[in-house]
Amino acid sequence: MSSNDNSFALEPVGTLRSCFGQKFGTPRQPGLCPHATGHIEMHSPWDTPDAFRGLEAFTHVWLTVIFHQVPHDAPLRPLVRPPRLGGNQRVGVFACRSPFRPGRIGLSVVRHHGWDYLDGKFCLRLSGLDLIDGTPVLDIRPYLPWSDTPADARAGWADAAPDSYLEVAFSALAREQVTELSHHHPDLEALISEVLAQDPRPGYRRGQADERTYGMRLHDLEIHWRTTAKGCIVESVTSNKGVTPY
Amino acid sequence: MSSNDNSFALEPVGTLRSCFGQKFGTPRQPGLCPHATGHIEMHSPWDTPDAFRGLEAFTHVWLTVIFHQVPHDAPLRPLVRPPRLGGNQRVGVFACRSPFRPGRIGLSVVRHHGWDYLDGKFCLRLSGLDLIDGTPVLDIRPYLPWSDTPADARAGWADAAPDSYLEVAFSALAREQVTELSHHHPDLEALISEVLAQDPRPGYRRGQADERTYGMRLHDLEIHWRTTAKGCIVESVTSNKGVTPY
Repeated sequence: MSSNDNSFALEPVGTLRSCFGQKFGTPRQPGLCPHATGHIEMHSPWDTPDAFRGLEAFTHVWLTVIFHQVPHDAPLRPLVRPPRLGGNQRVGVFACRSPFRPGRIGLSVVRHHGWDYLDGKFCLRLSGLDLIDGTPVLDIRPYLPWSDTPADARAGWADAAPDSYLEVAFSALAREQVTELSHHHPDLEALISEVLAQDPRPGYRRGQADERTYGMRLHDLEIHWRTTAKGCIVESVTSNKGVTPY
Repeated sequence: MSSNDNSFALEPVGTLRSCFGQKFGTPRQPGLCPHATGHIEMHSPWDTPDAFRGLEAFTHVWLTVIFHQVPHDAPLRPLVRPPRLGGNQRVGVFACRSPFRPGRIGLSVVRHHGWDYLDGKFCLRLSGLDLIDGTPVLDIRPYLPWSDTPADARAGWADAAPDSYLEVAFSALAREQVTELSHHHPDLEALISEVLAQDPRPGYRRGQADERTYGMRLHDLEIHWRTTAKGCIVESVTSNKGVTPY
């Protein structure tokens, strides 16, 4: 962490608790997985309903965050390789959203569901997340459609949402396990389907079946799945309490 | 500037040079004044075409900035009074865009016009600005329409762009001065009209003519104007070189 005269010291207003405990499986942009839920545990003095008065008029908020899993001393380069381009083409760091960027600053627009007390902590509930559990949140502000959507904006090679890459099926065992877990996780099948449809594997695997069984954590659950000729199949969904607290 | 263990030290990647030298007249959101131009002087090691490679495919960028004219030790409160509500209603700091917020973090989507060397400095050209000259820029990233515009977003009391409040006329003198200045400032009439249409006066003056003559700086120019029964009239536009360098 540099601390020369030109830098600004920014303190998080809260910590994100997310269904994503690890980078693998976390969507690359917000909104791709509407059932990806979580909340921000607000820090003092921002852990008060006053700080959110009036937010009920808005459906979405911008989160300014730190990509804390990027090492703070990771070498920063002007050129990076975004996964969207298959990982083998280099573009400028200011022409993409790579987390390997100055200050490790992230920006994400997500749906909010109002504040609440969870385990005695003052929280803002969220969905449509693309951020990992433990992410420090620097700021929260309402999304203003008329101001945040320039009518004539264009985005070249990233002009449309990525296709859903994988068709997702469930084994008989996995379906039974999802049903058993449904009282704790009512939208679990939707969440798993949304996450796997993005194909969390490295970009160069896209469109190819492979022989591996992949493991992935969502909430406190361990998901095992593998690719098939048509897409992928979820083999098992097991509780893994004690590993990921959220 | 706090610097406890929880804070992150963020270093600006550049400094904004804007036509707005002061808060008075600066639009409250980006895009309201398309002719409000400026550029970011990039700092080393980001002052290189590599860092912007591929940005030509995108029309707009997000700027993450510091509202540096808010004193860094300004007392931060959970409730603020946004000008949009006339300045007399309090809302939560996370339910509005007030610069009096944690970390003084600002967020602005503006049009870019590519990089260039200006006075020997590597710069990114911008328009549609709502930021003051000298603003430290922490990050620049491309605007992605499909990701940054949730289709069903709603924004309550701030759901539409503010009306243009003032009809703008020019005195014969002002029109002559604008014509004389047009080789340095080709879109000056449009810029002045866009800025004054927003009515830069405090919210409680809105809809009322008053007797004052107002002074406002744009680029290196001093603009004098007053309200009339129908809107406002620009009285003079004079060069003020040496006062604002940009």
